[in-house]
Amino acid sequence: MPLFLNNDEVEQLLTMKTCMEALETLYRELGEGTAVAASRTDIHSPTAAAQSGEAPMAHYLKSMSGASPHFGTAALRFSSDIVAWRQAGDGMRREKMPTMPGNRWLGIVLLFSSANGELLAIMNDGVIQRMRVGGTNGVATRCLARVDAQTVGLIGCGWQAGTQVMAVCEARRIKKIKVYSPTRTNREKFAAETAPLVGVEIVPVDSQEEAVRDVDIIVTSTNARKPFLGPEALAEGVHLSCMQRDEANDEALIRCRPLVVHTNLTENNSTSSQLSKIAQPGFEFRDHPMQRGIDWKTLPTLPDLISGRIKGRENAQQITGFVNNIGLGVQFAAVGAKVFEAAKAKGLGREMPLDWFTQDVHP
Amino acid sequence: MPLFLNNDEVEQLLTMKTCMEALETLYRELGEGTAVAASRTDIHSPTAAAQSGEAPMAHYLKSMSGASPHFGTAALRFSSDIVAWRQAGDGMRREKMPTMPGNRWLGIVLLFSSANGELLAIMNDGVIQRMRVGGTNGVATRCLARVDAQTVGLIGCGWQAGTQVMAVCEARRIKKIKVYSPTRTNREKFAAETAPLVGVEIVPVDSQEEAVRDVDIIVTSTNARKPFLGPEALAEGVHLSCMQRDEANDEALIRCRPLVVHTNLTENNSTSSQLSKIAQPGFEFRDHPMQRGIDWKTLPTLPDLISGRIKGRENAQQITGFVNNIGLGVQFAAVGAKVFEAAKAKGLGREMPLDWFTQDVHP
Repeated sequence: MPLFLNNDEVEQLLTMKTCMEALETLYRELGEGTAVAASRTDIHSPTAAAQSGEAPMAHYLKSMSGASPHFGTAALRFSSDIVAWRQAGDGMRREKMPTMPGNRWLGIVLLFSSANGELLAIMNDGVIQRMRVGGTNGVATRCLARVDAQTVGLIGCGWQAGTQVMAVCEARRIKKIKVYSPTRTNREKFAAETAPLVGVEIVPVDSQEEAVRDVDIIVTSTNARKPFLGPEALAEGVHLSCMQRDEANDEALIRCRPLVVHTNLTENNSTSSQLSKIAQPGFEFRDHPMQRGIDWKTLPTLPDLISGRIKGRENAQQITGFVNNIGLGVQFAAVGAKVFEAAKAKGLGREMPLDWFTQDVHP
Repeated sequence: MPLFLNNDEVEQLLTMKTCMEALETLYRELGEGTAVAASRTDIHSPTAAAQSGEAPMAHYLKSMSGASPHFGTAALRFSSDIVAWRQAGDGMRREKMPTMPGNRWLGIVLLFSSANGELLAIMNDGVIQRMRVGGTNGVATRCLARVDAQTVGLIGCGWQAGTQVMAVCEARRIKKIKVYSPTRTNREKFAAETAPLVGVEIVPVDSQEEAVRDVDIIVTSTNARKPFLGPEALAEGVHLSCMQRDEANDEALIRCRPLVVHTNLTENNSTSSQLSKIAQPGFEFRDHPMQRGIDWKTLPTLPDLISGRIKGRENAQQITGFVNNIGLGVQFAAVGAKVFEAAKAKGLGREMPLDWFTQDVHP
């Protein structure tokens, strides 16, 4: 009988330590070709509320899948959102609108057993996806940051920044974190709330320059759509850990040795021509519409790094970099397996009738 | 609140007429670029029962999605199966094993509203997928068969053959159907059971040659993995309707004008290297592992035909052909919308709590 697990339950069941261990095992498997990662599929279609002009809206159905033989699982994650692109200071930014009753969003992880194919669990995806994003940067940091790294400069203090802090503290014995984001009250609140969770001093600072000065690790955790971090931020020996693609600029990234990306799979993007017609010329219905000078597909990946196909840090002077450029469904096969295992052990979740999902005919 | 609809309910709610009308609308939308079809994603990973040698097993997670602005819906269909490849007379044939408790299979269609993104329905996929396969061939037959076509030669009498008969009878005023399949009792049973459903005479015959002789439409509905129908079967003016790729051979297909395929999207296939190691050299974990001389990607598609981009039948002499080469998730957005609409009208299905699927955070 599949277990239904909500975000509160996932949060109780999954530690960053467990999440990073699962991901590290997974990246080794991926490097060896035993785990299976597929490109995610993005579908954009018109929504009733579609506007014309520069800030169109769309219905966005996303799905991603993968399988991990080590964990004996496969996963399918999907989300269904009404998205709007709004002109922000740094370009067009996509926002997911809370259009479900009660101002909610819809995102689910389905976990399957590879032993008999059965559906093991249905989980809200919010907490687990945030953990695996942070955990992925954490796994890379463990390979790339100096072993004695103890200071962090963090740019951004949104919801994702919390797990980035958990992950960097799991990867290294961090003593101090400086955090900058444009709104003072936000960074102060974030510092006050997050410090006790990780037992590390977190100091809000007044500028990006101050945040990245004299630190061992720089973490960017923003929804920027134009890169804001240049090579001047990168002192000798630093590790740059980017949560997404458009945070460090090309000049900064090409200084990293190695520069590692999460994956060189890209999304399969399909868009209704009705949407293209209502948007301004050149507008693209994509997660990352901006063209970059970096050819992401040719860069080494986290599986390459973890499986030893490429070298990590070789000395204390080099500048290393990791860009968590795009997520993979297979992450949920590994991390989801650990959540499911913990839920069974603790008796959490609600059982659903499996026979609703199964049938006596096969297509 | 999403409606849960099982196969029995879908069967009550969906007629072939409605199914074909929905698909015809959809193919026009696809031809115009307004509907959105994405390639399906196939993931093959090792299963606990994986065997070595020539007949390996795998866990197979399939997912496909698409959106139809006309119907205001998007759909995600997925299935999770343990599959085994067995040596049949005509090559390696893939079988889905009933490994769920109660000897069942797992396949689901999720239907979403493009107005606000919400999950409208969860359906077992068996009945709806069979209807859309038949319906797709039916829509093509309506465009390509002679208007006065009244006789059908059917090869195959499995579960899918029933909807093929329903569809051809919906497309044309059929008077008589001859059916052949290798096992006499199967074809006799099929004829006896199916004739009353469509109100048409169905005659079991003793050979493939007899089935296709002097008919206006040939329908193949088999799980063959080596083509079994050659050009000698194709008399002047006939329409050839193939349920899948490997039924008519290359020589037969190139005689068709036009030869139309369902889609030129192909599956994204990802396979664990562990599986490749246990299989014989050259074995491929794919739905259609055999190489064909036909370059499917360059052929006109059903959306091309329905939207008028290519011509259909132009005279009573030409031989026309359609190959339902691969399914699309977007079919479930259109047909699923009609099922959902009918379920609401009739009060069928069980409501599930939507808030299980939604959350107060967005990734």
